[in-house]
Amino acid sequence: MAWNTNLRWRLPLTCLLLQGAMVILFGVFVRYDFQADAHWWTGRVRRNLSDQENEFYYRYPLINADFCVASVCVAFGAVLGKVSPIQLLIMTFFQVTLFAVNEFILLNLLQVKDAGGSMTIHTFGAYFGLTVTRILYRRNLEQSKERESSVYQSDLFAMIGTLFLWMYWPSFNSAISYHGDSQHRAAINTYCSLAACVLTSVATSSALHKKGKLDMVHIQNATLAGGVAVGTAAEMMLMPYGSLIVGFLCGIFSTLGFVYLTPFLESRLQIQDTCGINNLHGIPGIIGGIVGAVTAASASPEVYGEEGLVHSFDFQGSKANWTPRTQGKFQIYGLLVTLGMALMGGIIVGLILRLPFWGQPSDENCFEDAVYWEIPKGNSTVYIPEDPTFKPSASSVPSVSMTSPLPMASSVPLVP
Amino acid sequence: MAWNTNLRWRLPLTCLLLQGAMVILFGVFVRYDFQADAHWWTGRVRRNLSDQENEFYYRYPLINADFCVASVCVAFGAVLGKVSPIQLLIMTFFQVTLFAVNEFILLNLLQVKDAGGSMTIHTFGAYFGLTVTRILYRRNLEQSKERESSVYQSDLFAMIGTLFLWMYWPSFNSAISYHGDSQHRAAINTYCSLAACVLTSVATSSALHKKGKLDMVHIQNATLAGGVAVGTAAEMMLMPYGSLIVGFLCGIFSTLGFVYLTPFLESRLQIQDTCGINNLHGIPGIIGGIVGAVTAASASPEVYGEEGLVHSFDFQGSKANWTPRTQGKFQIYGLLVTLGMALMGGIIVGLILRLPFWGQPSDENCFEDAVYWEIPKGNSTVYIPEDPTFKPSASSVPSVSMTSPLPMASSVPLVP
Amino acid sequence: MAWNTNLRWRLPLTCLLLQGAMVILFGVFVRYDFQADAHWWTGRVRRNLSDQENEFYYRYPLINADFCVASVCVAFGAVLGKVSPIQLLIMTFFQVTLFAVNEFILLNLLQVKDAGGSMTIHTFGAYFGLTVTRILYRRNLEQSKERESSVYQSDLFAMIGTLFLWMYWPSFNSAISYHGDSQHRAAINTYCSLAACVLTSVATSSALHKKGKLDMVHIQNATLAGGVAVGTAAEMMLMPYGSLIVGFLCGIFSTLGFVYLTPFLESRLQIQDTCGINNLHGIPGIIGGIVGAVTAASASPEVYGEEGLVHSFDFQGSKANWTPRTQGKFQIYGLLVTLGMALMGGIIVGLILRLPFWGQPSDENCFEDAVYWEIPKGNSTVYIPEDPTFKPSASSVPSVSMTSPLPMASSVPLVP
Repeated sequence: MAWNTNLRWRLPLTCLLLQGAMVILFGVFVRYDFQADAHWWTGRVRRNLSDQENEFYYRYPLINADFCVASVCVAFGAVLGKVSPIQLLIMTFFQVTLFAVNEFILLNLLQVKDAGGSMTIHTFGAYFGLTVTRILYRRNLEQSKERESSVYQSDLFAMIGTLFLWMYWPSFNSAISYHGDSQHRAAINTYCSLAACVLTSVATSSALHKKGKLDMVHIQNATLAGGVAVGTAAEMMLMPYGSLIVGFLCGIFSTLGFVYLTPFLESRLQIQDTCGINNLHGIPGIIGGIVGAVTAASASPEVYGEEGLVHSFDFQGSKANWTPRTQGKFQIYGLLVTLGMALMGGIIVGLILRLPFWGQPSDENCFEDAVYWEIPKGNSTVYIPEDPTFKPSASSVPSVSMTSPLPMASSVPLVP
Repeated sequence: MAWNTNLRWRLPLTCLLLQGAMVILFGVFVRYDFQADAHWWTGRVRRNLSDQENEFYYRYPLINADFCVASVCVAFGAVLGKVSPIQLLIMTFFQVTLFAVNEFILLNLLQVKDAGGSMTIHTFGAYFGLTVTRILYRRNLEQSKERESSVYQSDLFAMIGTLFLWMYWPSFNSAISYHGDSQHRAAINTYCSLAACVLTSVATSSALHKKGKLDMVHIQNATLAGGVAVGTAAEMMLMPYGSLIVGFLCGIFSTLGFVYLTPFLESRLQIQDTCGINNLHGIPGIIGGIVGAVTAASASPEVYGEEGLVHSFDFQGSKANWTPRTQGKFQIYGLLVTLGMALMGGIIVGLILRLPFWGQPSDENCFEDAVYWEIPKGNSTVYIPEDPTFKPSASSVPSVSMTSPLPMASSVPLVP
Repeated sequence: MAWNTNLRWRLPLTCLLLQGAMVILFGVFVRYDFQADAHWWTGRVRRNLSDQENEFYYRYPLINADFCVASVCVAFGAVLGKVSPIQLLIMTFFQVTLFAVNEFILLNLLQVKDAGGSMTIHTFGAYFGLTVTRILYRRNLEQSKERESSVYQSDLFAMIGTLFLWMYWPSFNSAISYHGDSQHRAAINTYCSLAACVLTSVATSSALHKKGKLDMVHIQNATLAGGVAVGTAAEMMLMPYGSLIVGFLCGIFSTLGFVYLTPFLESRLQIQDTCGINNLHGIPGIIGGIVGAVTAASASPEVYGEEGLVHSFDFQGSKANWTPRTQGKFQIYGLLVTLGMALMGGIIVGLILRLPFWGQPSDENCFEDAVYWEIPKGNSTVYIPEDPTFKPSASSVPSVSMTSPLPMASSVPLVP
């Protein structure tokens, strides 16, 4: 089969189609909401809303878009380097829809709590992406395997991403919690879990290397797993030491995953997980969902206070007769629904992406930027000859893969 | 003519002169304003100001300084690599003054609206910079031309800048809007325009390449043009779909500019635009000014509400008898004044910078860091031999150009 | 002596020990405070606390942790590249304790003002780190000396760090000041000092180079010294021109330090200051402490207002009979206590770190990442042959040192 990776008309057409559809939909359906409309000026006097209330309502949907994008980025981590830009666009289109449906089911129908998105963002994004990459399995990927490994300069680069994610994770997990105690707890719990996770990631990474050396890929990724794993329970009374234990365990599991699970998934289950998202988002996400269910089920008026319990879990209105155990049960349902949606959605989207006209790269061209990107000619960043008899040849085309906005086992390779 | 690029005494003297002048001016004229003075403690009780009001007044001038610096950075983009640090200092000195005058004319005399600075920042900065670079035209720049092209590692680097600018642009465009609905609209409009702009930039970049590949320079730059183009109208009732259309068109124009206009400007008009600022700031800035004028002129009480209209455009006091059409007319005047100021100022400053004692580099040394920077000896970042018979020689001095804080066609070249 | 740098069991054990201790301590002693406890929901109604008050109390301890971490990072700058990860962990453990004791003495016992931490963070961190590195003196470090020099690509990298630090320094110095005028002043003073410092750093760097070229190491570091030097006086009535003068002088001293003092410290005092922290944190920190004492001592009711003076220096309660001169005297005591604590603590910790079983690298392996990090095989980022007859050999192991999160004379070397 001849691979045609020339996207000259297909990519622009797909973009313009999506964009055109969006303009029409926005033109027909989307208006400024009350707080962003100039009539607000009139309304404000009448309704006497404070700026802060506005701020809250206004920021909510934008934050929600962030969450959705985070989930898409997670899924990208599984397929990156093996798909074309058109495939990424189509995958995004479907995933955004599925994300919204899944979130609606969890938050509105099952009335689940998921402040930091352990389930809606991480579990969903990871297993959706892993299912897609399973369907897109490439038998001969070893040919381009060496291009997938990490590179020193790009590792430093990715480390900046890790630092920023680490610092902002407490804000991320507490962004949509109720102002006040819930939000404070969410930030504190996330901070504790992240701190513990760093230490055990370092410990495990060193213990698994025969000379006790640290691996940058583990440090970049596993140190963040603690933030994922307290996502659901962040706003609950997990207690600081509880958060430490969650982060403690997650740093170990995540690093073990990189060393043992990723190779196993590829060789036995034919799941080629480019960036190891199963270790940073998949497993920690499931742990987060379970921790959230257990923490919810064991909530008590002694710990939360009578009013605090009602406030924390919204035990009022349609949930008036819920007990903490009910909440815990529904949290588990939420996790199962998420996994189901991710698998079903991933299979369908994966099959769509297997259609042969999306401009996908051939197996030997995977992890090469030069397929879809115009690379500056005649200069590159990396060149260290491994072979003492190495002679640079005219075919030394510099070839490199883009790093994703999320930190990962970045793959900027060289050809020699 | 012998070029003397040794700045040993000239650069320090210029710096100290400027700094000394500033200390004296500050000593004589500058005091803490009310909100930063310790007497505030007394005043606060009397005046009963809330913290939030203080916050607003306090942040305003600092933000204004940001805007001025942004305009200077834009202009830098046109001359970078072809001027000495002393020339940059002198250019900054004059541009800050001209920026302040232009802003005063627009915002205070013409009473123009320009929330995101499409006119005051981008149009002014771009055409000021382009005029200066026209006056400083270098006939033999092809000699150092190959050093101006982009380089893989620096492209990744610049992409971080693009990501941050993209994320913060909604905050930037809404920073000086009135709290409340205006500010909300400004953020939403900017976000919509940026999102649309990304898609059409990608589409156009791919469509203009014979194999349909994407060009990093377009992605780094054109994806931001949408933020520039809604700068003026951001706080108006542009409507979400209106913002999408503005971004849609801007992504196309900006990318076309990189491919066709920049070479044309250089070959025919002798304007050597190092970073293509005409495509990211110049044209989108003018579009932004026109979009702002049209949006203002077509404002109606039906859309804004009676009070909203008065509030949005300050139709009170000296503007009490203004109609939306008047506002639109003055918006256009503001754009024309800005262009005039940029051209006149650019010619004068350009002529000053042509004086032969500012330590400017010779044509063959342009885009070389080594002229003004002490480069670490014996190591460099880049080395890929183009020629199979290449033998590294003692003359392989690593030579590279600094990237500016704004994303651009970064120019880290290599000599071999 | 045979150096054993295999950390396979020692590093994990140290990590797990620390982590285990922390879980137990947190389990026994640490509870959510009032604002993060679900009982808050009940309490809030009774106590009627506003969100903003909560915000303040809640953010305070987290910010305090930031300050402590900043101090640790400063000290890291002196020893980086010459110690093992285990040594860094142990050093951190002791320094956190000493930081807390020193801060308690200064802020609670001596009632000193130190908003931006000139003394508690910078002076303490710098002289603690320098003392440790003096105790750990390595006689034969010249062997790995060439690996310590800066490298072009890493310099660009570090420059991002400088930009972010520069931008956020005003927020940092004003973070713990009282809301209102104190906080405003702290931000304005810091901004002025930083701006002045940039100009004189550039001037001095150019004046000290025989061809008038700029050195990236100076620009990365000395441009920030102004922020350190107004740390203590930031919230006082230093006046804008006073801040300019402080920054003006600090840019000069800091750059001079890099050129003359660092080599002198190494050759005569056997203090091997990897990143030149004495120039960015040590000397500017002491200057900051003195500037703070002088500014406090010369405070007067004319400048501050009667109430403002009491409010600014807390002249009430146990300090009710203090005069500005008393405050100035205690500021100097605070500086001396800090220096004493840093020296004593540094000696003790340095002696502990000299014990031979922490896995420290041999002299010839200093500044090599490959000792403690698994480096991707067969590719590296840097390779420029200095020698025209250079032939890459199988021993060209890429070797590089990690950069710290604080900007510094980064040291990414190459082996050939």
